[in-house]
This record gives sequence, C-alpha cells and structure tokens, in this order.
Amino acid sequence: MKTFACSVPTNVFFGAGEVSRAGELAVTLGKRAMLLAAKDTMRQLGFLERVEQLLTAAGIEVVVQDDVSPNPRDVDIDNQTRIFLEQQCDFTVGLGGGSAMDSAKAVAFLAGQGGGTISDYLAGGDHADLSDPAIRPACPIMVITTTAGTGSETTPWWVITNTTDHEKPGTGNSTTAARYAIVDPQLMLTIPASITASTGIDVLFHAMEAYLATIATPFTDLLAQEAIRIVMANLGTVLEDGSDLEARSQMAWANTLAGIAIGEGGSGTVGIHALGHSIGGQTDAAHGLTMAAVGPAFMRKTWDADISRYAQVSRMLGYDQGNLTEQQLAQKSAEALEQVLERFGCRITMTDLGVKEEMIEAMTDSVFKTMVGVLDCSLKPISREDVIALYRESL
Amino acid sequence: MKTFACSVPTNVFFGAGEVSRAGELAVTLGKRAMLLAAKDTMRQLGFLERVEQLLTAAGIEVVVQDDVSPNPRDVDIDNQTRIFLEQQCDFTVGLGGGSAMDSAKAVAFLAGQGGGTISDYLAGGDHADLSDPAIRPACPIMVITTTAGTGSETTPWWVITNTTDHEKPGTGNSTTAARYAIVDPQLMLTIPASITASTGIDVLFHAMEAYLATIATPFTDLLAQEAIRIVMANLGTVLEDGSDLEARSQMAWANTLAGIAIGEGGSGTVGIHALGHSIGGQTDAAHGLTMAAVGPAFMRKTWDADISRYAQVSRMLGYDQGNLTEQQLAQKSAEALEQVLERFGCRITMTDLGVKEEMIEAMTDSVFKTMVGVLDCSLKPISREDVIALYRESL
Repeated sequence: MKTFACSVPTNVFFGAGEVSRAGELAVTLGKRAMLLAAKDTMRQLGFLERVEQLLTAAGIEVVVQDDVSPNPRDVDIDNQTRIFLEQQCDFTVGLGGGSAMDSAKAVAFLAGQGGGTISDYLAGGDHADLSDPAIRPACPIMVITTTAGTGSETTPWWVITNTTDHEKPGTGNSTTAARYAIVDPQLMLTIPASITASTGIDVLFHAMEAYLATIATPFTDLLAQEAIRIVMANLGTVLEDGSDLEARSQMAWANTLAGIAIGEGGSGTVGIHALGHSIGGQTDAAHGLTMAAVGPAFMRKTWDADISRYAQVSRMLGYDQGNLTEQQLAQKSAEALEQVLERFGCRITMTDLGVKEEMIEAMTDSVFKTMVGVLDCSLKPISREDVIALYRESL
Repeated sequence: MKTFACSVPTNVFFGAGEVSRAGELAVTLGKRAMLLAAKDTMRQLGFLERVEQLLTAAGIEVVVQDDVSPNPRDVDIDNQTRIFLEQQCDFTVGLGGGSAMDSAKAVAFLAGQGGGTISDYLAGGDHADLSDPAIRPACPIMVITTTAGTGSETTPWWVITNTTDHEKPGTGNSTTAARYAIVDPQLMLTIPASITASTGIDVLFHAMEAYLATIATPFTDLLAQEAIRIVMANLGTVLEDGSDLEARSQMAWANTLAGIAIGEGGSGTVGIHALGHSIGGQTDAAHGLTMAAVGPAFMRKTWDADISRYAQVSRMLGYDQGNLTEQQLAQKSAEALEQVLERFGCRITMTDLGVKEEMIEAMTDSVFKTMVGVLDCSLKPISREDVIALYRESL
C-alpha cells in the first residue's frame, strides 16, 4: 500500500431538517456573520429568510449579501470582502450551491488577509501559492448547501472567475475548508431538473476523477466508488421526481462522499476538471456540463494508463456488453461514460455550450496557467498538444 | 436516510516509513513533549530511541515515560500527569498499542484540567461527564501506533483501569482525539502472533459492532464493512507470516477504518464491548480476547433485532451454507462468528480468561456503572438479567 494522509476536516451535519442547526453551530464561530447567497433564488425559495432567522434567533448579527452570481467573479469577492471588513464580521455563511459556498470561502480568505484583491491570490497572481507561510488563515466559514453537486461543502477548494482574462482558477488551502457544512436534502426538493442533472453529473465526475487520480488513496477509492454506486442508483429517480426525499438524500450523500474524496490530498480531480474549468471561464456554462463535454474524449485518450481502474469505471457505470476482457472494458470506458451521459440527458458537445474553435487556444493557455496541478493528477501525462486535440475532439 | 454527523478530526498519516514524520508534526504542537511508551518492548525494539531522536532532531525537548502497563491504571495516569506538569510539557506522544495511546490521551486530558485524580473523571467519579462546559480541553496529543488493533489512533476514547473497584471504563470528549496519528506498518512487523491475533480480532469487533450499532450511519457503515472485508482477507496472512508488509499494511488500514467508524457519533461499539471491558477490568486479559469470549452469545441473543444487518454480518464473515434465507443467515451470525474466531485461533471462553462464576455479579455491576452508554447502542435492549445470562453462557 502507498503512504497517504486521511482526515475530514469539515464537520458535516447531514440529513433532512439539519438546517435548523444553523444557529447553534454559528455561535461557535463568532457574533457577526456575512450571509452570502445566490441572487434571487434563495430569497424566492424562502431559504434566505429562514437561515437569517435561525442565525438571528441564536444571537448572531447578520449582514446579508444576496448578490452572488452563478460563476462568482473576482470583483464581487473584493467588494463583498470590503463590506465584511467594514461591517466587522467574524465569519461567513455560504447558502446555496457552489457559487455561494465558494464566495463564502473566498471572502473569508481575503478578509483573513485584511482585504485587497482576490485575483492577487489566484493562479497567475503575485501571491498564488496559498501554502506560503506568509498567507494568514481564512476567517471561519460555514456552508449550507442547497444542491447535490460541486462538493464545495467538504473541500478546501474554491473557484473564482478572473474577469481580466476570463479564467476560472480553483484554489484553496487548509484554512479554507468550511468549519461546518450543513447538508439538508429538504433544501434540494425544488431544484429544477436541469440543475439536478448538471450537478448530479458533477458528482459523478468528482467521484470518477478521484478514482482515476495519481493521488488516489484507499480512503478516497472507498468513498469515490460508493459515490458512483449511489449516483448510478439514484440520479434517474431524482430526475423523474425531484420531490423524492430519499433519492435526494442519497444524491446529497453521494455528493458529500465525492467531495471528501476530492478534498483529500493535493487535489483530487484530473484532466476532465482541468479542461472543463477553462470552458467555464470562457462561456459561463453550468460547471457539470463542461465536464460532460470533454469527459469522453479524455477517457478515450487515457484508458490504457491503468487497465484495472478504467475497467472498474466501466463496470461501475453499468457497462455490460458480455464477456469483455479487462483490457476491452477499460477501452470501452469512454463509451460507458457516453451511455451514462445520454441516459441522464447530459450528452453534450463544447459547441452546444457555445465554444468556437478559435477559443481553444486561449482555453488551452488557461488550463496550463490555472489548472496544471489538477491536469498533472491524470494517470497519463497530458501535453499542450493533447489538450488542444481533446478540445477539438469535443467540439 | 437518517440524520447524522460525519468528520475525521484526527489527521492520519498512513504508510510504511511514515514514522519519520514524527518530528515535523510534533513541532506544530509545542516545544516539550512527554513521550509515553509501553514498558520494555518499545525500548527493546528500538522504536523508543528512534522516536526520541526524531523529536529531538526537530528541536523538541522530550520527557520519556516508558512505564506504561498493558492496561493502564488510574494511579499511573495521576503520577505521569504530575510529572508532565512539573516538567512543563506542552503535549503528549503515545508510542505503542492502545495502552500507550490511551495513556497519552488521559495524561493530556488530566494535564488540561491542571492535574488531580483521573478517577474523578471516569464513570462513577464526581466529574464523569466530560462534555460538561466546565471541563477544559486536553493538551495536544500525538499517537504513533505499533499495533493494528484498538482503534485508539482515530477515536476520542480512552480506557483506564480504576484500581479501587477493578473497573475498566472508557471515556473521552471531542478534545481527546489525537491531533496527529502516525500509522506505520513497518512498526508492526515484529508483533508476536498472539498479539496479532487478539488485536486483529479487536479490529473485527470494532467494525462489526459499528455496523450493528443504533448510531450507525451510512458513513460508518461504509468504513466498517470495508474494514471487515480487509480483516477477512488479510488476518490469516499476517498470522502465517508476520513480516508480510503488504498484509500488515492492510490490517493497519482496516484498524484505521474501524477506528474512524467507532470514533464517529456517540460511541460506536455495542454490548460486546460493554461486556468485554468488564472482563478486562477483572482479569487483565488481552482486550480483543474478552470480546471473543462474549461475542457469540451476544449475537445469539440479538440476531433478530435487525435481520438484514445480521445477515449481512454472516455474509461478510464468509458464512456460506447454501441457500439460506435472510432470516436464517441472521440467525447463524453467532455460528459465523464462532467459525471466524476458530479460524484465527481466538475461540475462547471466559473461563479460559480466568473468570469465575462468582465474578459475574461484580462484572455486571461494572457494565451498568461504566459502559451503559455503549450497551445501549445495541440494536436490542439488554437488561441486567440479559447481561448475567450472556456472561453465564460465555463461561
């Protein structure tokens, strides 16, 4: 067995009704919270008011910042952090999907540095190495997730769009994992089918990529395989009936497991996420769909890097075409993935997402500038030429 | 799905050679360490000197306390804590099996209270509720395990023998989990077969009981089932050839997983551990063997509390007698366990461990005084009469 580290730094509170804990947990983090939530939706659903009341009832002063956009931008974070510091907040609460949670992490991080410009700390910035001892710890973070996707609840990672060069770098350090994550499937019953699909597919990619990463460990393997099993058994059900609490709970749990798997160790995802992020930076497409667009090409390119793991992926994706050898099963992993994407309505091309061939050069630059650590976790080395070819194949 | 919490507060560093991290990790905990180790063995094996050197090389001042006995006693903890405080130590390092790790936790805890008498904090003592807000946090703890058993690396629990009334209560709170646990299978290559067996069986009981606990969660179920699978696949190998590093690694990993499973939530084990502990308090028998003595009777008593889980235990224990129904499989779980204990040389009675019938009354008192929280995690209620009957059956 290899050597590895294992821990789950976030305290996850999982289950229907668990959002009611928000107040009791928050009081351990400070007196004044900035509550970050996605624009409009959280208020329309009544979630914003509910969480605000829970916090207030626990004696927390709440600064509401419900202007989080779907792919949060550097300038938003700078502005929210300025308000956080002006209002002398102690901690952030992110309520929503990946955008709200990542904003909560980024604001808490930048506030920990005393404010400034978040892009200085993103890939390409002057202080991009967040493990530098000169970097101060983030302020405490609590997240309440309302989607079963992104895994942001349990990872230290956050993704902010750099508006200067249209990049979407992921970053984070050991202080930017949430102190508490509330995963309450009751908040997920009204997610529209399109978001259920794209976030559900994101869970599948997190788990599959964690299993196909050079830094996979027996711990991440265990969680990732269980997450894939649960997604395959439940994503169809929640797409048919979004109000099925048990199936929503299962998807939320799969997301939590996959999130823990990619939060462990150096990074957790591989080339699929590296390529997907740069599509997101250019097009604002839903995160999960960007992976769906490039995933099959990536599998086709890399399947022979580890026959046993790629064969196992095919099996876990339910690919069964008679008596295939391990080698054949591995080779068919791209096809297995395509069938699953088709089944869940996520078979899509980069062209569908608005990518034009002339963007590929800039997207490739972006991969190597912002996601090279993730790319290098792939089981096969991926060169610049490979990335261009993978993008072309996925148009 | 039920609601539950999930986290792994201990940072586990797993793998051959990982003991070399001891210094780099220790410097984050303070300047002066008390290194607690089992009497004689750790020095004979050279482990004590090695760890002392690693700590010293990192600039840590080390107070060596290598007088830990197999079942650490309250009076030892009081004495070691007095020295810890006199010597102005900052943190403890437990090097060895459960006894050394539990001593490190108990000393760090008592030192956190400013010293005193540990029995005041054990079941029956004046301050036995360690979740009381008046209880101060333990000093930091690091553990380096040299056995694949006990799970103490990753749990907040510690077990100290109360010498006044011969009890062996387990206790702990959220501050008594180790900050760092080093699990290095290279330190396990020379464990004698008898200890390999009794600790390996302990791992099996941790995992099996975690799976059969009222407080089981999807997270603990996943880890517990994987731990059982690994024990069944590897315990025979390490018993045949203790120097097999891969099999030792697998057992160490199973122990880590089972430890995480029983460290989550309120307690993790059930009636088998509750009854076993009280045998240990009376006889000083190896911890794992006490569970082996009472396990089958417990299964025979409780199998109908949850047919599906007990049937799954039979399957995981490799019990296969043709086309049994779920009900029959569950009913046979005691027999399945007996076969496994037989196979690993741990089929044993309480009489073999030195228990006499006249001790049963005191042992039963002890269960209800010190282990009732654990007992109540069993899937079936267990009365005082039941405990007496289970002990009688296990003589």
